[in-house]
Amino acid sequence: MKKKIKKVNAAILIIGNEILSGRTQDKNIAFISSWLNSECGISVKEVSIIPDEEKIIAKNTLRLSKKFNYLFTTGGIGPTHDDITAQSISKAFNVKYEYHKEAYNILEKYYGKNKFNDGRKKMAKMPRGSKLIYNPSSAAPGFMTKNVISLPGVPSILNSMIENCKKYLIKGSKTHSKTINLYTVESNISKELGLIQKKYKKFVDIGSYPFFRIGKIGVSIVTRSNSISKLTSVNKDLIKLIKLKKIKILRI
Amino acid sequence: MKKKIKKVNAAILIIGNEILSGRTQDKNIAFISSWLNSECGISVKEVSIIPDEEKIIAKNTLRLSKKFNYLFTTGGIGPTHDDITAQSISKAFNVKYEYHKEAYNILEKYYGKNKFNDGRKKMAKMPRGSKLIYNPSSAAPGFMTKNVISLPGVPSILNSMIENCKKYLIKGSKTHSKTINLYTVESNISKELGLIQKKYKKFVDIGSYPFFRIGKIGVSIVTRSNSISKLTSVNKDLIKLIKLKKIKILRI
Repeated sequence: MKKKIKKVNAAILIIGNEILSGRTQDKNIAFISSWLNSECGISVKEVSIIPDEEKIIAKNTLRLSKKFNYLFTTGGIGPTHDDITAQSISKAFNVKYEYHKEAYNILEKYYGKNKFNDGRKKMAKMPRGSKLIYNPSSAAPGFMTKNVISLPGVPSILNSMIENCKKYLIKGSKTHSKTINLYTVESNISKELGLIQKKYKKFVDIGSYPFFRIGKIGVSIVTRSNSISKLTSVNKDLIKLIKLKKIKILRI
Repeated sequence: MKKKIKKVNAAILIIGNEILSGRTQDKNIAFISSWLNSECGISVKEVSIIPDEEKIIAKNTLRLSKKFNYLFTTGGIGPTHDDITAQSISKAFNVKYEYHKEAYNILEKYYGKNKFNDGRKKMAKMPRGSKLIYNPSSAAPGFMTKNVISLPGVPSILNSMIENCKKYLIKGSKTHSKTINLYTVESNISKELGLIQKKYKKFVDIGSYPFFRIGKIGVSIVTRSNSISKLTSVNKDLIKLIKLKKIKILRI
């Protein structure tokens, strides 16, 4: 019996001047994207990185949440003045920006009544109707507003929360992939690779990525598909091509 | 005499399924953004990461090239079937996709007439009217079409080409920045930090970023401005606040 392929997609919105300026190297895109595919069968189709500005956050939240099944935002949910993700998402959906009762209780308990100052209280303010994403590292929860999931920017905290997003997500068909690393140059196989891609047009994506390792040039051929049988089949064609061209495979 | 501030901005368009899928960790955003600011006084204001699909590349090229002074694209200018940046930019601007004579000559000379196959020839095809960005690593040039500069995705090659973009760029005022690393938590200073940000509203951006180092929690306060005197002044206010709160500064 053939399994029906169910496509579910997502976008990521990285909110943060520090990423745009080049000061900080983003690590969340690769992590979220890999996790979404392997754990939920969800493919990330677009990423935007934007500054900490309310209008820009609101506009991009609307744009991407309409275009994809889910939108993940990272950054801007802490206690300082530059943390404006929650209020911007409220603006985007035209809902009230207010204390979330459960979040307020979680944070009050975590910090203790005496140390629960305004900055900390701010982290309990969310768009009305948001569902919480629990935070096992540092208490302050993320939240889901409609199809938008907002997570913090600090990678270690984000990573610790990601499993708590799962229950809110509809699962799709996983994209399987296979990589073959070759000791050759792209232009040696580009024509034949193009023909193989044509043959599997709608079912398999073939990517070709040059690499440099210990002074040697190579190419990684990455095949990606929702169908394992199509993936096996395209890889047989690739192996034929590799043998024909007498190319050495690099085992890594 | 006061120096007039000249704002020049840019966007980056990362073209590549391998970045979206999480297989490859992007390194070009931080590099291009830092280089543009330090060498040319150009601020990156938006980044998009999109798949290798002609329509999507063309649409985003148009959108971002209209919105910003410059657009930098990375990826998709190699010899294989998934390298479709040049043809997509031609579509975006409705100009012919054709051999660039100088690029053709450079590549023919580099590979030698006998080894100059179709894949390699493809790298000489560009949108009509493009100017070349020379490539000292692997010959295949990047190109500038209107205000769009297209570079390869492999970081080491891109890095080696970036200086060759300089002659095409109008320079702006550099954004200067200063970082103070503190042994405290964000919520301990969030209120006062917000007030300082208000005071310097249009002139200085203050960012607050938690960090974790050798088991200790800290906050990096990053101030960014086109004006060195404003930056000095805001940092004096910050030092006052730090002394008042008796916070330890971390020297790194």
